[in-house]
Amino acid sequence: MYFNKKDLEEIGNVKRLNIVNSITGIKPANLIGTISKDKISNVAIFSSVVHLGSNPALIGVIVRPTGEIPRNTYENILENGQYTINHVGEEFIENSHYTSAKFDASTSEFEICNLTEEYLTDFEAPFVKESAIKIGLRHLESIPIESNGTILVIGEVEHVIIPDKAINKKGYIDLEKANTTGISGLNSYYKLEKITSFPYARVSEIPDFKNE
Amino acid sequence: MYFNKKDLEEIGNVKRLNIVNSITGIKPANLIGTISKDKISNVAIFSSVVHLGSNPALIGVIVRPTGEIPRNTYENILENGQYTINHVGEEFIENSHYTSAKFDASTSEFEICNLTEEYLTDFEAPFVKESAIKIGLRHLESIPIESNGTILVIGEVEHVIIPDKAINKKGYIDLEKANTTGISGLNSYYKLEKITSFPYARVSEIPDFKNE
Repeated sequence: MYFNKKDLEEIGNVKRLNIVNSITGIKPANLIGTISKDKISNVAIFSSVVHLGSNPALIGVIVRPTGEIPRNTYENILENGQYTINHVGEEFIENSHYTSAKFDASTSEFEICNLTEEYLTDFEAPFVKESAIKIGLRHLESIPIESNGTILVIGEVEHVIIPDKAINKKGYIDLEKANTTGISGLNSYYKLEKITSFPYARVSEIPDFKNE
Repeated sequence: MYFNKKDLEEIGNVKRLNIVNSITGIKPANLIGTISKDKISNVAIFSSVVHLGSNPALIGVIVRPTGEIPRNTYENILENGQYTINHVGEEFIENSHYTSAKFDASTSEFEICNLTEEYLTDFEAPFVKESAIKIGLRHLESIPIESNGTILVIGEVEHVIIPDKAINKKGYIDLEKANTTGISGLNSYYKLEKITSFPYARVSEIPDFKNE
């Protein structure tokens, strides 16, 4: 199948949404946990988390201030500067998926979707107990994306929790052992099977692909 | 295992790089194809492609102007405004991985890594023939990220190619059928197994999780 820009414009909103949300490939399935100044906790699924750099350890997420993605998350981040990113595991995909419904701000998705809040000392934002890998972040800056009115929210990593069985001495993390999942589009979920790894690529060590 | 911000600062560059590059979850494995004004083609693997919006169809990628990720890609994008994003399939992960070596600008990674250039009429940037899903983009804007000197490069989708077997009438794309892969960290590759999908989440249709 081939679509050009004009085809995409004329194809209808739903089909365009489905195609364009999937063509970038697999997306990470993460739950973002926040809390309002009135102490109402919030958790919502996001597929737009992106690694920005490791030193300092910075992570980005694209938020849509209005529209399909719940806005409470971003309001809470602005209120207290804290949020958590928690991997969606295979066992609680359905619970995680339904956090994307538009609940009103007085409702905690933890309660409705049967996910468990977990707190670290001195960190207000809730982690998701069911998640194997969890990150606590402090909001650093928000960059408006003028092309479509979305926002790149950047946070610095302050806490990282990883199960012992999923990390080795060098710091390599095995996402299959952590039961981490991926998303395509808005509603298809994938499990991960680790198939291979390669050393850091150096020009002097390139395999002889032509004669393999 | 638990790490706080101070632990990450003191853990050493390599271990921090490995941990922080993996904690966001699975990342899409994509090859970005470009061409210089001297008609030297370039292809390089990126794990930082992110969906920004479907109407207009916008895709972002984080680039590092200097450092580990080859800079030729971004220079070429600025020169002619075009680039392609091509999914890394299971059969050519190794070829794709080694495009990340720091070849000089006169070298085409297509040649060295044994990947095949493919061209569409009226579009200068090369696609990767081996990829099942491929996107042609026009550069729209570049947003500097001051926190760490990276750049969010935004492009509008002009061409999309998807194998018939991987897309249905509603526009849902099956990444398992497309043989699309994912990356964790800088060098571990995963295959994808589709396990479930759910309808768009409405408040009135939330499952009764407490009594399931």
